[in-house]
Amino acid sequence: MNQKSPVVVTEIGAVRQLVRDVRARGKTIGLVPTMGALHEGHMSLVCRAASETDYSIVTIFVNPTQFGPSEDFSRYPRTFDSDLALLARERVDAVFVPSTDQMYPNDFSTLVQPPRVAEPWEGRCRPGHFQGVATIVLKLLNVIPADVAFFGQKDFQQVRVVQDMVRDLNLPIRIEVCPTVRDADGLAMSSRNRYLNATERRQSLALVQSLRRAGELATQGYRDAAELRREMLAVLERAGITRIDYVALVHRETLANVEQVTNETVALVAAFVGGTRLIDNCSLGL
Amino acid sequence: MNQKSPVVVTEIGAVRQLVRDVRARGKTIGLVPTMGALHEGHMSLVCRAASETDYSIVTIFVNPTQFGPSEDFSRYPRTFDSDLALLARERVDAVFVPSTDQMYPNDFSTLVQPPRVAEPWEGRCRPGHFQGVATIVLKLLNVIPADVAFFGQKDFQQVRVVQDMVRDLNLPIRIEVCPTVRDADGLAMSSRNRYLNATERRQSLALVQSLRRAGELATQGYRDAAELRREMLAVLERAGITRIDYVALVHRETLANVEQVTNETVALVAAFVGGTRLIDNCSLGL
Repeated sequence: MNQKSPVVVTEIGAVRQLVRDVRARGKTIGLVPTMGALHEGHMSLVCRAASETDYSIVTIFVNPTQFGPSEDFSRYPRTFDSDLALLARERVDAVFVPSTDQMYPNDFSTLVQPPRVAEPWEGRCRPGHFQGVATIVLKLLNVIPADVAFFGQKDFQQVRVVQDMVRDLNLPIRIEVCPTVRDADGLAMSSRNRYLNATERRQSLALVQSLRRAGELATQGYRDAAELRREMLAVLERAGITRIDYVALVHRETLANVEQVTNETVALVAAFVGGTRLIDNCSLGL
Repeated sequence: MNQKSPVVVTEIGAVRQLVRDVRARGKTIGLVPTMGALHEGHMSLVCRAASETDYSIVTIFVNPTQFGPSEDFSRYPRTFDSDLALLARERVDAVFVPSTDQMYPNDFSTLVQPPRVAEPWEGRCRPGHFQGVATIVLKLLNVIPADVAFFGQKDFQQVRVVQDMVRDLNLPIRIEVCPTVRDADGLAMSSRNRYLNATERRQSLALVQSLRRAGELATQGYRDAAELRREMLAVLERAGITRIDYVALVHRETLANVEQVTNETVALVAAFVGGTRLIDNCSLGL
C-alpha cells in the first residue's frame, strides 16, 4: 500500500513546534481546516495541499462556536478513525486534532466580528455562525502559520468571509478555493448528507437541479435575475422542498442581490430536506 | 554622535519584506506600536526592544478606529520629525509609518470584538475604543510578526486587553509590559500632556497624588477599598478636578472592583483636567 500514516498532534504547543521544525527545513506548508467527517470534497482540498506545498497539515475540529443553539453540534458526525485512514491514503503529513477545552478555555472571550460579506444569507439564517467561523479560522492560522490554506467553493459565503478577513486583518496567508465535488448524480458532497434517508437523498437533488436550471437559462441568454430565481424556486417546490432559507442571484464579490445576471453572478440556495439543512451554489459565469 | 537613522518604511509590502530579510538572517524582532508624539515613556519601550531583541521596529500610526467621534483624533499631536530624531538616538532599526488608507481601505470591515476585560472603565467611557485598539494591534502584529511586542503599564487596561487577545487568538508573540515613566513631579508621561496649559499641568498632579495616597494607605494596612476610593476622590476634588470618569480599586487580572485591597489590587483613575482627559494607575501590591 502506498500509505504513510500522518503524525497526529493534539496539543497546540506540539503543532507549533512541528511547524517551526518544518519551516527550519525550508519547506512550504499547506493547511486544510476541517470539522472531520471527511468526504471526497475534503480530499480534493487535501490533494491540492499535498501537490502544491511541501508539507500538508489537516485540522479536525468540530468548532462549537459556529453552531447555533438549536443546530446539530452534538450530533455532527465524528468519524476520526475513518478520517485518519482517508488522510493516510493521500499522504497527509500531519493531522491536528485539538480538544475543545484547548481551543476555548474557560476564560476565552475574544471574537472576530466578521466582514460585511458575512451579513446576508447564511449570516441572517445562522446568527453568530460566521463569527464562529472567522474566529476559529484566525486561531488555527495563528497556531499553524501555513503558506496556503485550502477551502471549498461549496461553502461559497464562508470562502468570501475568510478572504475578506484575511485581507482586512493582513493575515500573511494565501487562500485557495477548490471546486465543489459532487456525487455522480450531482449532489454536492457534505458531511451533513449522512443525515439523509433514501427518500430525502433523492429529494435533495432538487438543489443542484435548481442551480443547473439557472445555469441553463443564463446560457440561453436570460438575464433577469428575478425570473431565474422564480424558476429555481419552482424546481425546489416541484420536488416537495418547502422549507427554503433562501434562493438568490448575487454578485460574487459583495454577495448582494443582482437584478441582471452577468459573468459575476453566483446562484445560491439553502433549504431543508427533511430535518437536514443543505446549501449549494454555482457560478453563472460563462 | 552615536546615531544611526532608522529605515523609514511606509508600505505594508515593504515592511513584510524587511521582516522576512531580518528573519532570514536569524535575528529576533521587537515591535513597539505607537501613535507617535513620542515621549520618554515610549523611549523606555524602544530601549527595552533594542536591548532585548536583535532588530527593533517602531510603528507610528494614529489609529482612527480607537477614537470616538467626539474625541481628539484630528488634533492628536503629529510630530514625525522630532519622533524620528528621538528614535535615531535610541538606534531603532526601522520605523513603519503606514497611511490610513493602507491600514483601512474603503472596503475594510473586519473587527476584533475585544475580550471581556475591555468592558469596564475605559471600555464604558470610550465605547469602541478597545475594539479599535485590538483591531489595529492584531493588524500590526500580522504585518510585522515580531517575537516580542512592548507596551506601557500606563495604559493598564489596554495591556490587559492585548494580553487576553493574544492568548485567545493564539497569537505567536510575547507581550512585555514596561513601567510607567513619570516626569520629575510624578505626572505620568502621555502625548496628551501637551494639551495642558500651566495651570492644568499643576492641577493634573492630583491624579498621581490620588494614587500615591491609595498606596500610602495600603502600606499602612488599610484594606477597605471603598475607604481608599473615597480618599482618592478627595485628593482629586481638593485639586478642583470635578469631571472624573472613574476612580477604582480593581483586581489586576479581571479589572473587577474589589472590596478588600490585596497584593493583586490596582488603583485606576481617569479624569478631565480642563478639556484634557488623563488616565493613570498604580499597583497596590507590596
